Amino acid sequence: MLQISKPVLLVDEAKCRNNIRQMKAKADAASVLYRPHFKTHQSGLIGEWFRESGTTAITVSSLSMARYFADHGWNDITIAFPVNPLELEGICSLAEKISLNILVESVDVIGQIEQHVHGATQRIGVFIKIDVGAGRTGILMSDTASVIALASAINNSPSLLLKGLLAHAGHTYKAKGKQAIEEIVSQATKGMHGLRKAIGNEKLILSWGDTPSCSMATNLEGFDEWRPGNFVFYDVMQYHIGSCSLDQVAVAMACPVVAVHPARNQAVIYGGAIHFSKELIRADNAFELFGYVVRINDQGWSTPLSGAWLGSLSQEHGIVNLPADVCHKLKPGDILGILPIHSCLAVSAMRNLSSVTGLAIPCMK
Amino acid sequence: MLQISKPVLLVDEAKCRNNIRQMKAKADAASVLYRPHFKTHQSGLIGEWFRESGTTAITVSSLSMARYFADHGWNDITIAFPVNPLELEGICSLAEKISLNILVESVDVIGQIEQHVHGATQRIGVFIKIDVGAGRTGILMSDTASVIALASAINNSPSLLLKGLLAHAGHTYKAKGKQAIEEIVSQATKGMHGLRKAIGNEKLILSWGDTPSCSMATNLEGFDEWRPGNFVFYDVMQYHIGSCSLDQVAVAMACPVVAVHPARNQAVIYGGAIHFSKELIRADNAFELFGYVVRINDQGWSTPLSGAWLGSLSQEHGIVNLPADVCHKLKPGDILGILPIHSCLAVSAMRNLSSVTGLAIPCMK
Repeated sequence: MLQISKPVLLVDEAKCRNNIRQMKAKADAASVLYRPHFKTHQSGLIGEWFRESGTTAITVSSLSMARYFADHGWNDITIAFPVNPLELEGICSLAEKISLNILVESVDVIGQIEQHVHGATQRIGVFIKIDVGAGRTGILMSDTASVIALASAINNSPSLLLKGLLAHAGHTYKAKGKQAIEEIVSQATKGMHGLRKAIGNEKLILSWGDTPSCSMATNLEGFDEWRPGNFVFYDVMQYHIGSCSLDQVAVAMACPVVAVHPARNQAVIYGGAIHFSKELIRADNAFELFGYVVRINDQGWSTPLSGAWLGSLSQEHGIVNLPADVCHKLKPGDILGILPIHSCLAVSAMRNLSSVTGLAIPCMK
Repeated sequence: MLQISKPVLLVDEAKCRNNIRQMKAKADAASVLYRPHFKTHQSGLIGEWFRESGTTAITVSSLSMARYFADHGWNDITIAFPVNPLELEGICSLAEKISLNILVESVDVIGQIEQHVHGATQRIGVFIKIDVGAGRTGILMSDTASVIALASAINNSPSLLLKGLLAHAGHTYKAKGKQAIEEIVSQATKGMHGLRKAIGNEKLILSWGDTPSCSMATNLEGFDEWRPGNFVFYDVMQYHIGSCSLDQVAVAMACPVVAVHPARNQAVIYGGAIHFSKELIRADNAFELFGYVVRINDQGWSTPLSGAWLGSLSQEHGIVNLPADVCHKLKPGDILGILPIHSCLAVSAMRNLSSVTGLAIPCMK
């Protein structure tokens, strides 16, 4: 039985395993390579749940994370982050031990990589990052000339092996509904296929990531590889996008109630920005939402309480708005659960998770 | 010489020590008790810099932090957070070793505390939390009857010693300028003195915290104790409030540049929400600011680059907007520094700091 005395990020193992199984089944049905992103859970133990479901290749977002999962027996890893020239020493060392892929979006870094490659027992896999509209990283999908030039530079390198083109459609997070997301997928499919044809190597892998499209879109058949990550836990933001039901959200922060203010129908919880980060959903009317409120029980947690929400966060405090009848019965020392807005950031802030039965689920430090 | 290969939160020791000295001098000049809040730096080493400047009593925001600093030799600590009934075992144990003060705002918890007090070699100090307008925690300043009732319950407890009334004017963070802040101080002074008189014990300490007012207000003479915290580092938010100059900001995140996009005058840095948290300043025109941009050098960092700002954050990426001439000269592998919006959250996200010369500054885990 779990003893809670301060904020604990609980994982519902059954929900989590179900999310893992469902996405794997969807990928299998589509006959794609499956390389889930492990940045959301950052946990060796949860990695094992993926392995049990048949996962063999993974995505991470930093060299540190690649090392952590390599230490946990993963030997086929893509670091889906523009290669950091200041970590090439470590990247090259790791690439001698496992099959490692990196992301490149500029010819400039090719020379820098060359300088760090040692004996080169095996070549480092490279994906060219394509910006399919998110506007964050990558070569613009319309800039065929730059993609061809970079592909050529990679092909000319004895240390590098061009594996494919990789996109992260971060703009699906701002899309309104399934149809808008499928429109993004459709445009990206056309553009990425065009680029592959322009490079002239039909073996190149077209790699696609992001939980909203992998959860909702039914037109992902044009891509060869999927890299969703957040779906392992989902969260309130994914629910708002339409990627999941609230019942699929597999993490909840258990927080002690430290003050109750019936006059304003609010409770203060021990649970703040250092536990949740400060991700929020802001409605057009300036309403701010930092999480939904649930009741913790021995089996996990309830459905969200109607009319209850986490409305503000300071460093260690959270203020929860509650219906009058709930608020009046609450007292300091009770526990409320919060479904987080962004599970990746809550995990990263907490670093350690717990099952609802009290089993420690350690994460990368 | 410091080697930077991934995000590092740098501390400028000279600026930090200067901030520490200045606030101590202001407190000494005002002849108040001085109990700085250590939640911003969370570091045993930086605690020593305070000790060298004459600090003997401190404030923290959790039992974990109280234990950490007790282990670092601090023996007069206030946990400025509503007492958490689920941690009373640990609180009572710690109170047997050091002089410990807690915050209470409801009669309900008095009985819960009583049940956990052991041999009680010494009484636990109690401050009653007063809400002077921030609307987060505490008894409303206007609710004299509740304050008197709670003071009476504390006085009747053989385990507790009523030490004073404590306020945190969190609403100074939203005040516009020095005059508005002094107005808040003035009203709170009047209200807190009235409450002390109503309780009938003029020895009670009136305790006051928050960096904006302790930095700017010149009418704090009505309070007996000050508990500012953020001033140790300051940050961009404090600069916007008017608490400090940008030159006083004593932390900067050094971040590798991993991609440069001259077409949109942006660079992508390795440095995201897991390093900065997601605190932002949002202007009325929806402009979003996540930090100012500086150049890192051997002595620390430059003044902020004109026309440059950190404009968005995802998990590990930051997007920096730059003037064209700066952007065109930048390349992957360069390093940019970022002055954070909220230094407390950046420290909490990073957990370890470094001096500009590479000296490790460990923090609470």
